[in-house]
Amino acid sequence: MKVSIAVDAMGGDDSPLKVLKGIDLFLQKEKNVKFFIFGNQDLINPIIKNFPLVSTSSTIIHTYDRISDNLSPLEAVKNGKNSSMWLALSALSEKQADVALSAGNTGALLVMSRLLLKTIAGVDKPALASLWPTFKGLTVVLDLGANIECGVKNLVDFCKLGSALFFSIFKKNNPKVALLNVGSEESKGSEILKKTLNELKEKKNFFEFSGFIEGNNIKDGNVDVVVTDGFSGNIALKTAEGTAKYITSLVKDRFLKTFYSKLIYLLSFKIFKSLKNDLDPRKYNGGIFLGLTSPVVKSHGGTDYIGFYYSIKLCYDIINGNLQTQLEKNFKG
Amino acid sequence: MKVSIAVDAMGGDDSPLKVLKGIDLFLQKEKNVKFFIFGNQDLINPIIKNFPLVSTSSTIIHTYDRISDNLSPLEAVKNGKNSSMWLALSALSEKQADVALSAGNTGALLVMSRLLLKTIAGVDKPALASLWPTFKGLTVVLDLGANIECGVKNLVDFCKLGSALFFSIFKKNNPKVALLNVGSEESKGSEILKKTLNELKEKKNFFEFSGFIEGNNIKDGNVDVVVTDGFSGNIALKTAEGTAKYITSLVKDRFLKTFYSKLIYLLSFKIFKSLKNDLDPRKYNGGIFLGLTSPVVKSHGGTDYIGFYYSIKLCYDIINGNLQTQLEKNFKG
Repeated sequence: MKVSIAVDAMGGDDSPLKVLKGIDLFLQKEKNVKFFIFGNQDLINPIIKNFPLVSTSSTIIHTYDRISDNLSPLEAVKNGKNSSMWLALSALSEKQADVALSAGNTGALLVMSRLLLKTIAGVDKPALASLWPTFKGLTVVLDLGANIECGVKNLVDFCKLGSALFFSIFKKNNPKVALLNVGSEESKGSEILKKTLNELKEKKNFFEFSGFIEGNNIKDGNVDVVVTDGFSGNIALKTAEGTAKYITSLVKDRFLKTFYSKLIYLLSFKIFKSLKNDLDPRKYNGGIFLGLTSPVVKSHGGTDYIGFYYSIKLCYDIINGNLQTQLEKNFKG
Repeated sequence: MKVSIAVDAMGGDDSPLKVLKGIDLFLQKEKNVKFFIFGNQDLINPIIKNFPLVSTSSTIIHTYDRISDNLSPLEAVKNGKNSSMWLALSALSEKQADVALSAGNTGALLVMSRLLLKTIAGVDKPALASLWPTFKGLTVVLDLGANIECGVKNLVDFCKLGSALFFSIFKKNNPKVALLNVGSEESKGSEILKKTLNELKEKKNFFEFSGFIEGNNIKDGNVDVVVTDGFSGNIALKTAEGTAKYITSLVKDRFLKTFYSKLIYLLSFKIFKSLKNDLDPRKYNGGIFLGLTSPVVKSHGGTDYIGFYYSIKLCYDIINGNLQTQLEKNFKG
């Protein structure tokens, strides 16, 4: 069976070009996939002519409407029923595709997904997850902003959602799951976190519960899944982004400062290239909206075609890893 | 008038040695200060013999008791009434000193401070603030963990506390203050944040209110003060720490990998030294507990004498900058 991906071709900067180039790059490496591309044919067709691989592996569903970034989720839903985003999600809800992908307006995508796709039995609130590079590999972190306020039940659900995602990609049994907190001692944190801790300690789960984890230890990679509410998760994600940008800019500035430092920079070109590759945020591009009957992947709006390629790869990996089967199993257990 | 600092000499790793070495380093640069040093004289006296500057500028108040790091705040308060931490804070509450400084147990220090020092009229909850390096200088961020749950009134107070701190150090009028949120649009975030936004927009303040700010923009340095609840602030602080450590380790590893890269590393020794200096967390060591009748400074427990020196410098700067006068002014207005 081919993996089938419904793509909103009109979301984010420089679309549909980056979307189509990303699809082409993916098809060069993996043939076992077909695409439903939603968007403006007047813009798509002239580009796609130059990408024969994309032409033969995809169906274009034309619409002039697109969801712009400055639209509120409410406006988007109200006026966007013929948009490329809505249509891509509709195709998913009708099981014409296995997963939907968009680089567009995050708020609109989350609200439309919830409207068009049912939640899995047992899940109250779906969550947005992504993979963070650590000293030891990749760690799933959620929720990254779908739910600003979360109760005990939500956080327990997120543990199940996140561990299913981790298992589907890495096939490691009993992934280690921890709750993000201001300290690792059991006395620390809000009442909700303390209650969640107690609930998780008592239950036998598909995952191994590792208690509380602090923000500075996420990057250690000693746990596979880090769970938090959407507010803190979003703050953590973006603060990490800002810090990474700050440090890499500082390093770059320093090496481009004098004639001597520029010379050193040239001599260490290969080292910097490999560093840049390791720290390339495009490689980890893609948030996964978990807990619905089908997964929806959100690409960063500002990424380029290589970043978009990685979000396609993420779609492919979770479908190949039977994410939905694993999710349903976690919520039945 | 000399600045008078009450120092808990027994907190954190490698104390009292690092504390006394830090004081010595500070006295080499600044004479207009005197220290009250609280701790075990059997450990302090043999060290202080080698630091004549410290001997002449300080009074030692002996006690064998110290607050260990694994004590809960409750236990610390119950059994620690003769500890170096408690006695240092008592000296502050009795106005024998202008500011207290400890590298010990954070939870105990906060609870003891609240017990021994009154809050300024108008302040419900004091907050923990620190200075973050940004692209443009330093930004005050608070609360970093003193208050896990915060209401509208608390967040408004934190804006006043943070802007008073910023003004006292940098003497810049109308500091720009923003609330940390998951988006910069006014529709984003919790109900508490939206209400706080409305309240701040309406009021005329000593500071300039800049709306919401996202985690990735803190490092841009476009605002002078970033306000959030203690949970998110702590997560942001520690996630930034972890990210910085991750990236600098990666850079270091890469340059120490091969013979060639080690050679490059040697050739670029000066560049790396200046980078290391810029990114040195010891230079920003010190959280300030704001909103009490006197300020209390918390040094990182794991820092060395140079880090401790910087926390002494912070004590000196805020007293010299008339922090308390500014705080009271902000809460009267």
